[in-house]
Amino acid sequence: MRKIPVLEVFGPTIQGEGMVIGQKTMFVRTAGCDYSCAWCDSAFTWDGSAKDDIRLMAATEVWDKLKEIGGDRFSHVTISGGNPALLPQIGDLLEILKANGIGSALETQGSRWQDWFYDINDLTISPKPPSSTMETDYDRLDLIVSRLKENGSNFSLKVVVFDEKDLEYAKGIHMRYEGVPFYIQTGNPEVSMEDTPRLVSNLLLDYERLIDVVCEQKELNDVRVLPQLHTLVWGNKRGV
Amino acid sequence: MRKIPVLEVFGPTIQGEGMVIGQKTMFVRTAGCDYSCAWCDSAFTWDGSAKDDIRLMAATEVWDKLKEIGGDRFSHVTISGGNPALLPQIGDLLEILKANGIGSALETQGSRWQDWFYDINDLTISPKPPSSTMETDYDRLDLIVSRLKENGSNFSLKVVVFDEKDLEYAKGIHMRYEGVPFYIQTGNPEVSMEDTPRLVSNLLLDYERLIDVVCEQKELNDVRVLPQLHTLVWGNKRGV
Ligand code: SF4
Ligand code: SF4
Repeated sequence: MRKIPVLEVFGPTIQGEGMVIGQKTMFVRTAGCDYSCAWCDSAFTWDGSAKDDIRLMAATEVWDKLKEIGGDRFSHVTISGGNPALLPQIGDLLEILKANGIGSALETQGSRWQDWFYDINDLTISPKPPSSTMETDYDRLDLIVSRLKENGSNFSLKVVVFDEKDLEYAKGIHMRYEGVPFYIQTGNPEVSMEDTPRLVSNLLLDYERLIDVVCEQKELNDVRVLPQLHTLVWGNKRGV
Repeated sequence: MRKIPVLEVFGPTIQGEGMVIGQKTMFVRTAGCDYSCAWCDSAFTWDGSAKDDIRLMAATEVWDKLKEIGGDRFSHVTISGGNPALLPQIGDLLEILKANGIGSALETQGSRWQDWFYDINDLTISPKPPSSTMETDYDRLDLIVSRLKENGSNFSLKVVVFDEKDLEYAKGIHMRYEGVPFYIQTGNPEVSMEDTPRLVSNLLLDYERLIDVVCEQKELNDVRVLPQLHTLVWGNKRGV
């Protein structure tokens, strides 16, 4: 069994964003990403700053840790990163979760395919807009979306929007993959700000502006516009 | 065609709560409620204070109004109240929406059944906890839930929680209707407060506390805990 590079296991808490927003869940955060988004709010998973915290764990050890921390107070686990889709061995963990009746959610940017995508209950594909400075590989994304559609998977697309160009990008994604549930999310431009009340008031203003522009666009009708709830509640604190 | 007592038509904006939180949508608010919850945030729909604003509209007139205001910038309509389940004539409006490819959402407290419940895309049944001072008619609620289950409807249960007793009530509802998607929501105890920044900071603290207590309860694992986004963004302002 190949080991999983794990940075954090915590919870239960709530999922702060996307298709299962508000869901009570445990979190497993894996290390490593093939991207380096300009505004990454989890840069410690790939920039080396937390490399001493990475633990190589077998899927069974991750499950033991989840039970140790969460006890009987959870029935859902979210796997986040970094990009967990870099790790074929996540499949082992998903098998254990399924066998124990635990639901699963995962988010990835859509740069890699894994067969275990089929075993995720709530899968979010979140391609990165221009402000990230990353380039979307549309061939790869087309392949991922078509496989998930064919399989009848419960999945959604989510784009974080910081500016006009990002909104155009979001529009393009929504129109390219018609019929796939689509989420537009405000980003957090101040991932180091420690003044939480000020951060919250800025983020709520950004959210209001994003609602306004989305509501003006006839190409963005059947969409959901959401903030990141965890940032509104806990600011930039980690592990909550 | 029986006319619908309408208090507000507005949008597009976003749905601030529940199973379609964040959804871009138009709103139609009907007048009248068979309850009088202590903390009702829409008391103007039933306490007489806005009775001069009520317009009796045929379903076709509501549709014309929606198009006049929303143009081509919407594909989803939320019908709210008051309790729209008092009105059999909502069925006429739902038919028009369906014929025009418009999705629909509706929330009701579960005190009345209407056959048009089957025509709602996203139906929220929100029984009221003890702090409302209302009494739940469990026979009625059982009937509604079992009919919706049998029909395979896309529906959820939602309970607003203000205090310990409400949380116990929520637990009871969740356990009674196992398997039905379940939402727990913070209430707004200050529906008249005009100081929005203060309201927001209070509501986020309430939300954090609610997350904490839900996370401690093993009877409340497969649940979603959500705030009211519209109140965080717009405070107690109406018609947004
Ligand atoms: S894909 Fe996600 S984890 Fe990776 S750099 Fe971008 S925001 Fe960070
Ligand atoms: S059921 Fe809803 S509209 Fe009616 S009084 Fe209660 S909160 Fe207000």
